Amino acid sequence: METIITSTQNPTVKYFKSLNTKKGRAEHGVFLTEGEKCVNELIKHMPQMLQSVIISDDKYANIAAFAENMGKSVYRASPRVMNAVCDGKTPQGIAAAAKIPSFDTVQNGFIAALDGVRDPRNIGTIIRTADAGGCSGVVLSPCCADCYSPKALRASMGSIFHLPVTRANLKSYLSRLLALGYNIACADLDGDTEYRLDKYKTCLVIGNESRGISPEILSAATHRIRIPMYGKAESLNAAVAAGILIYKILN
Amino acid sequence: METIITSTQNPTVKYFKSLNTKKGRAEHGVFLTEGEKCVNELIKHMPQMLQSVIISDDKYANIAAFAENMGKSVYRASPRVMNAVCDGKTPQGIAAAAKIPSFDTVQNGFIAALDGVRDPRNIGTIIRTADAGGCSGVVLSPCCADCYSPKALRASMGSIFHLPVTRANLKSYLSRLLALGYNIACADLDGDTEYRLDKYKTCLVIGNESRGISPEILSAATHRIRIPMYGKAESLNAAVAAGILIYKILN
Repeated sequence: METIITSTQNPTVKYFKSLNTKKGRAEHGVFLTEGEKCVNELIKHMPQMLQSVIISDDKYANIAAFAENMGKSVYRASPRVMNAVCDGKTPQGIAAAAKIPSFDTVQNGFIAALDGVRDPRNIGTIIRTADAGGCSGVVLSPCCADCYSPKALRASMGSIFHLPVTRANLKSYLSRLLALGYNIACADLDGDTEYRLDKYKTCLVIGNESRGISPEILSAATHRIRIPMYGKAESLNAAVAAGILIYKILN
Repeated sequence: METIITSTQNPTVKYFKSLNTKKGRAEHGVFLTEGEKCVNELIKHMPQMLQSVIISDDKYANIAAFAENMGKSVYRASPRVMNAVCDGKTPQGIAAAAKIPSFDTVQNGFIAALDGVRDPRNIGTIIRTADAGGCSGVVLSPCCADCYSPKALRASMGSIFHLPVTRANLKSYLSRLLALGYNIACADLDGDTEYRLDKYKTCLVIGNESRGISPEILSAATHRIRIPMYGKAESLNAAVAAGILIYKILN
């Protein structure tokens, strides 16, 4: 905690910065999360994943001390270096590097599955919404955006540390759920608006922002469900649609 | 349509670019909307507001011809100039300048009101969601982000051209609605989860992303309503919350 890093060429700074890129995360199996809220949620809910903390603001000294007591590395940087480390425009006084966790794929309760959702903000917002709705996990198809990218992490507001988020071949994952008697409820513009689903045994599938759910996945649906459109809009934002459907299924 | 603008220093290009800034929009009373979907929705639903069109891609020649037949100016630009004109990262082959409309404030039906929502994407997404839910209008408090900013326009996906969106002093606007016997349903973390509202006489109020609804506005509530949180998330994204509440009130 003594030395303050003032050079953006410092190897630790370069390491942290690299975690904002897909390549860097893949190479190290580590992601970087920014801001007090996310770092606190990470330490609280996934302490075993924490690797190191970097701070540029004294008001986070207690979090830094907590991390040091856990035996983790803590770095101190100038605000300028911190801005270089962080992805967001709003300067954050704290960030943490953590191992990307790997979970067994959830096969119980209410599950949210995403098929080719490309906007990292939507990924993060859906994870936050699935958390709020009490989902037991979120499953991403291989072509979804990275849930550990800075934009996805910011949008998840720490919820990514609250429930298992996994990547899986969605087709075979849904087959396993079907064999367990699961409802596979696919959000589809041609679906039904009236349905009744057992929230303890349903997987809600949300598709790509413009193309919707791929035909291969849609063929596994036990239910195709739709949000009624009363005005002139043709569709809803993917995260808003996920929220409306999750809460509709819950009630 | 003959000359192709190839210089970013061209006065027309500078004018279009200025519309991506708050200052430019305020100075001219004009906004710029990008992309085929939004330009088409603008021409279809608010033709009287259209001022001029700029294209860089021949596939939009029919839209350009349509605008010319309406007596509007049409400019042709090189892709490089078009990228300079547009705000988004994804290059769009078409954009249109249009007068910022002014509507009488809606006082009938189901209304969405926003109190200090600061993220332009949330503003646009909520307008899109209000459109889908059949709201008769959207009212923004003075401290909301600009609904004609590039980010808000993109997120609204053309819905801003489907229903009246106005700015108003929210306190006095809600007083007028109260006098008309309206329900004022404020989304509030301390609100009730059980309620029944007349969708033809309700104004749903959504507050700021971190602070929620201001005390002054909250005091006008006839109902304080809340989305139940089943997991560990403390709150939802403002646009997701708006979507869940709009569809809950509709049913």
